[in-house]
Amino acid sequence: MTMSKPLILVSNDDGITSRGIRLLIKLMQQIGEVVVVAPDSPQSGMGHAITIGNTIRLDETDIFPEIRSFKCSGTPADCVKLAKHFVLKDKQPDLVVSGINHGSNTSTNILYSGTMSAALEAAIEGLPAIGFSVCDYAADADFSHTEEAIIKIARETLKRGLPKGTALNVNFPPKRNEPLKGIKICRQARAKWQEEFDQRFDPNGRRYFWLAGNFVNFDKGEDNDEWAIANNYASVVPCVYDLTAHHAISLLNDEWEI
Amino acid sequence: MTMSKPLILVSNDDGITSRGIRLLIKLMQQIGEVVVVAPDSPQSGMGHAITIGNTIRLDETDIFPEIRSFKCSGTPADCVKLAKHFVLKDKQPDLVVSGINHGSNTSTNILYSGTMSAALEAAIEGLPAIGFSVCDYAADADFSHTEEAIIKIARETLKRGLPKGTALNVNFPPKRNEPLKGIKICRQARAKWQEEFDQRFDPNGRRYFWLAGNFVNFDKGEDNDEWAIANNYASVVPCVYDLTAHHAISLLNDEWEI
Repeated sequence: MTMSKPLILVSNDDGITSRGIRLLIKLMQQIGEVVVVAPDSPQSGMGHAITIGNTIRLDETDIFPEIRSFKCSGTPADCVKLAKHFVLKDKQPDLVVSGINHGSNTSTNILYSGTMSAALEAAIEGLPAIGFSVCDYAADADFSHTEEAIIKIARETLKRGLPKGTALNVNFPPKRNEPLKGIKICRQARAKWQEEFDQRFDPNGRRYFWLAGNFVNFDKGEDNDEWAIANNYASVVPCVYDLTAHHAISLLNDEWEI
Repeated sequence: MTMSKPLILVSNDDGITSRGIRLLIKLMQQIGEVVVVAPDSPQSGMGHAITIGNTIRLDETDIFPEIRSFKCSGTPADCVKLAKHFVLKDKQPDLVVSGINHGSNTSTNILYSGTMSAALEAAIEGLPAIGFSVCDYAADADFSHTEEAIIKIARETLKRGLPKGTALNVNFPPKRNEPLKGIKICRQARAKWQEEFDQRFDPNGRRYFWLAGNFVNFDKGEDNDEWAIANNYASVVPCVYDLTAHHAISLLNDEWEI
C-alpha cells in the first residue's frame, strides 16, 4: 500500500481569479492533492444561496498549472455540491477549504458569507471543512501572516477530523507590525451590522439605495471571535448547521398555549 | 391611552405577487396593522444573501388595498433591513412574519431558505419573527388548513414574545383529508438533499446542469420537524443565528495542538 496524499477541494466566494484562492491553493499544495471548484465571478454576500430554477455552468479551466480546476456559474454552495456529486464523484475529498476571503466572516457575518456557506455545505455532506477569511477589505491586503496558521489548522483537521456536522470558521486580523499572537478557539460574538441605507437618485430621478453601515460588537466576553481579532489572534469558531434554539424548546412547551 | 393594534411587517421570498403572501397579509390583518416589504421577483433558494456591491430599488405599490406595501429588488434579508431602517424607521414592528412559503423549509432547508432568512434577519435586529411554509410545491396548493394555526402562533408570539435572538420556523404538511393533528414544538431534523445533477447540452453543444435530487430524512427521532410533518402536525422550530458548535469548543481546546 502506498501512502497517498490527502485530496483537498478548494473553493471560495470571491471567484476563481481572486488573490485569496491563489494563496490558499499554494498552501494546500504543500499538504495534499488539490482540486478547485470555484465561482466564475464574485459571490460575496450570497449567504447559503443555491441555484434553483436556473441552469448552472461548470467548465474546466487551465489557469492553475498542474491542478484540476473548474469555474462554476453558481454560488459557493453550488460549487461544493457539484464537486461532491460530479467532479469528485468517484473519490471524495478528505478536506474542503474555502477562501481565503477578502473581508471578515466573524460573528453574524457568517450568515451572509458565501465562504462559510461552502464550508457548511461540505459539513452537511459529511466532509471536514474550513473557511478562511482575513478581516481586511483592501484589494492589496497582506495575507502573509496567515500562511503558517492556515497550514497548521488544515493539517490538524486532516489528522484529528472534526465532530460530525461541524465546520471551522477561521478569521485572521489584518496584518500588523507585531506577529500574530496565536490561534484561539472561540464562540461566535454577539455583534451585528448597524445598517444605514444610502438613498440616491438615478439620472432618471428614480430612487435607489446602497446598503451601508458599521459593524458593532455588543459582546463583552473575551471568548469570542471579535475579541480574538481585536487582540491580534486568529479565531477558530467550530460551527454547526443545526439552527435549533434547543434551550427554547422546553420554554415553548411549558409556556405556550397552542 | 388608546389601545393600538400591533404593527406587523410581512415579507417573503416568493415575491410580492405570490399567493402565499396574500393569504398571510389577510390573516395578519385580523390581528394587527400590516406593512408589506417583499421582493419584486421570486427569491427562492437565496438563503441569507444580501445585496452588496449592487444597488437596491424600493418602490411603494398599490396592489394591496388599504395596506402600505413596498416591492424591493433585493433579497428577503434586504427587505427586512430596508423595512427596519427606512420604511419603519420611526416605528418598529411588533412582529415580523415571512411567507407563506410555497414549499418545505424543514430541517436543513432552513439554510437555503429566503423565507427564514427574513425571519432570522429580524431576530438579529431584535424583533420577534416567524417564517411560515407549507410543504407543498404545487402552484395551486391548498393552504386553508394553515389559517387557524398561523393566527394562533402569531397571537401567542405577540402575547409572550420570544427569547432574545430567536425566530420561529413554522412548517405545515400538505393539506390532507383529515384535519391537522395539532402544533408540535420541534428541533431541526437531521435530513438533507441527496443531489443529482442533471447534465444537459445547450443548442451550441455547451454543457450545463440542473440541480435536482431527493430530500432524505436520516433522523430516527420523533421530536423533529420532519416527523411532525410526516404525521400531519404543524412543526414549530425555535431557531437562533448563533452557529457556534458550543460542545466542540472544549474538545478542540483539549485535543488540538495549535
